[in-house]
Amino acid sequence: MGLESFIDVSPDSHFPLENLPYGVFRPKTICRESSPEVATRPGVAIGDYVLDLSVIASAGLFDGPLLKDSRCFNQPSLNLFLELGRPAWKEARATIQKLLSVDDSTLQEDASLRKKSLLPMNDVEMLLPVEVGDYTDFFCSMYHTKNCGTIFRGPVNPIPQNWFQLPVAYHGRASSIIVSGTNIIRPRGQGHPTGSSPPYFGPTKKLDFELEMAAIVGPGNELGKSIDIEEAYDHIFGLVLLNDWSARDIQAWESIPLGPFLGKSFSTTISPWIVTLEALEPFACDAPKQDPHPLPYLSEKRRINYDIPLEVLVKPAGEELASVVTKSNFKHLYWTITQQLAHHTINGCNLRPGDVLGTGTISGPDKESLGCLLELTWNAQNQLDLNGTARSFLEDGDEVIFTGCCQGEDYKVGFGTCTGKVLPAISIDK
Amino acid sequence: MGLESFIDVSPDSHFPLENLPYGVFRPKTICRESSPEVATRPGVAIGDYVLDLSVIASAGLFDGPLLKDSRCFNQPSLNLFLELGRPAWKEARATIQKLLSVDDSTLQEDASLRKKSLLPMNDVEMLLPVEVGDYTDFFCSMYHTKNCGTIFRGPVNPIPQNWFQLPVAYHGRASSIIVSGTNIIRPRGQGHPTGSSPPYFGPTKKLDFELEMAAIVGPGNELGKSIDIEEAYDHIFGLVLLNDWSARDIQAWESIPLGPFLGKSFSTTISPWIVTLEALEPFACDAPKQDPHPLPYLSEKRRINYDIPLEVLVKPAGEELASVVTKSNFKHLYWTITQQLAHHTINGCNLRPGDVLGTGTISGPDKESLGCLLELTWNAQNQLDLNGTARSFLEDGDEVIFTGCCQGEDYKVGFGTCTGKVLPAISIDK
Repeated sequence: MGLESFIDVSPDSHFPLENLPYGVFRPKTICRESSPEVATRPGVAIGDYVLDLSVIASAGLFDGPLLKDSRCFNQPSLNLFLELGRPAWKEARATIQKLLSVDDSTLQEDASLRKKSLLPMNDVEMLLPVEVGDYTDFFCSMYHTKNCGTIFRGPVNPIPQNWFQLPVAYHGRASSIIVSGTNIIRPRGQGHPTGSSPPYFGPTKKLDFELEMAAIVGPGNELGKSIDIEEAYDHIFGLVLLNDWSARDIQAWESIPLGPFLGKSFSTTISPWIVTLEALEPFACDAPKQDPHPLPYLSEKRRINYDIPLEVLVKPAGEELASVVTKSNFKHLYWTITQQLAHHTINGCNLRPGDVLGTGTISGPDKESLGCLLELTWNAQNQLDLNGTARSFLEDGDEVIFTGCCQGEDYKVGFGTCTGKVLPAISIDK
Repeated sequence: MGLESFIDVSPDSHFPLENLPYGVFRPKTICRESSPEVATRPGVAIGDYVLDLSVIASAGLFDGPLLKDSRCFNQPSLNLFLELGRPAWKEARATIQKLLSVDDSTLQEDASLRKKSLLPMNDVEMLLPVEVGDYTDFFCSMYHTKNCGTIFRGPVNPIPQNWFQLPVAYHGRASSIIVSGTNIIRPRGQGHPTGSSPPYFGPTKKLDFELEMAAIVGPGNELGKSIDIEEAYDHIFGLVLLNDWSARDIQAWESIPLGPFLGKSFSTTISPWIVTLEALEPFACDAPKQDPHPLPYLSEKRRINYDIPLEVLVKPAGEELASVVTKSNFKHLYWTITQQLAHHTINGCNLRPGDVLGTGTISGPDKESLGCLLELTWNAQNQLDLNGTARSFLEDGDEVIFTGCCQGEDYKVGFGTCTGKVLPAISIDK
């Protein structure tokens, strides 16, 4: 039987006492009253409520040795808390789990503190949980890699030779990472010319989502010093859902020879709640066997993924209903998040608290488990039927909804949703 | 005749009254006394001195309408000043030029203020001038592009089709941008396997420099809104020298299909002084004619580069003398910095104050003007003779020195130097 909170948590909730994901929020009522910096603070989700960690800290309830004098919850981001590392994260989790438990009276029986610290989720606005120093996007699903290779380069050797030796990645754009619910403005750009004509210029004709998750980095490392793969776990605070919105026509034209740029940098959406690796531990599972065996710096004793069922829904413009377009799972990743992190630092590159490491599109083996429209419609060769509405790529007004949720015996550990609605491109004279 | 300062400025100085570049420094004596945040503040270079802008601000001498109530010079970075935009930059320049002029008595005749505000350059430590949100690296020299294409893909169509239509670029790593003088630790990583053997793993065997400059972004733009090319100039504060250190064996193996990653992210060095576009204006020159004509969003009325002669010197390990290995010039860039910036935002990507836009390696047309060892030694097919020492790529202990300086009629506007010394790779058990 699951842990029990004095707060009523529905069995379907993504946020029971076993989860306790971290986010950053602003009470909607406070928005107009005080400055945004003061009003913005970390919180933890419990059922349909948000526990205001700044209030808990100010009440002196973080009384463990590592957190009692810390200002980490009186901040507009989680970066300082992430920097403290796993011992502090464990201490915080134990404190919060105890405070919210039905067996503890501290919060349960203090009506005034309860009112101040527990806010209905509907009354708060969720913001980016971290200040992102750098965003890296990996390419770790073999199915996705094979499909993209086949679409763009043909069926002969669709997976590049290096892919089985290292987790391929590129640097992404940090400034345009946005929180779930923020609208996406259709980007403009250049697409491939036909024959000797000038390139196409205008709003992208191939707007896509990419179903990803991302690891949020904890303490990080000093420039010049690598993180050993056996220590990589302690540098990952938790996971979020990530939508790596992509303009396929812009990307295909610009990427030679230096990789994706404007086809990606217009927006990247993450879910507001960071689910910790502690909360995901019951859902750990073996990661796929690797052949060839990776080099020693990428070999780990315990190779784990997490069994996180993922879904993408698309609600077409003007329609009431969202249709499921794919069902995938985090467990399909060939390269683990610890391998990704160890590889990232092997050259001495420094990671900082709050850095975002995207997994790359998480496609599974079946045609129902493909993680983007490029794969699902085979670059618009086919169309999806969304409850009577046809789609090859996204149209203005379409809304994309990701969700991910682990199923325990009698509880869930979920990520909530990661959503975005497509707005038309801004017109210009040129 | 040049402007005259009451401070003695040698005719060879990079930093006369016509220049006034901005940086961030820490007095060496204060380092041990107060916290680094308090001690770190913006300054302007004048001859062999640094003018402490926090002291000038505190003395109430920034008395223009835009700066008189600003805290922008009481900051550990220039970001807030950059955000204010060109009118504030002009006001600051006029104030500083007047205060340092031989015709003004304010500072000249106040011995106490002079002593507090003018510090010998030898007594300060230069730090990163900006907090870098994002770093983008372009690929804007046609000569460099052609040479790299020929080396890696052969002499048939060495320049990709897209290159003449848009300024190709990739996202770089912001966390590992370091200031001139910081040592470079030789990165480790995977290199290309031969035949069916596992990939090489170890310290890079092909460590290179790349001679670049970078634009430092001013106000920037909101996500979703592009910057028109005719307004791009006002979003660029100034230029620095940039060494995009590269591990060619790591880069060549990892870059398919998503571009450079660990072959670049171990370190990127910038010079400490940002030379403003105002100071560079006398050295503006026509940029190369473009054929084909760019799309309207990249077409600008006045297409300018700057005539900035650049040099790279290498001082081999254990030697006393540095040898000049290349002489190039900023004016060789095919895509201007305003085109780079307009292109960067055409998809709605938001730029923030302090963002760094690298130009890409600035190679010229001659074999003496190639901007990296990859080109100079044609991927180690040849060796350079450095005053009796042979080099194909960089060895441990080698020091690389960039310098750039515009020559006026009787004064210079220079960038100082951008240097780094190579240290051996850190060994690990794995």
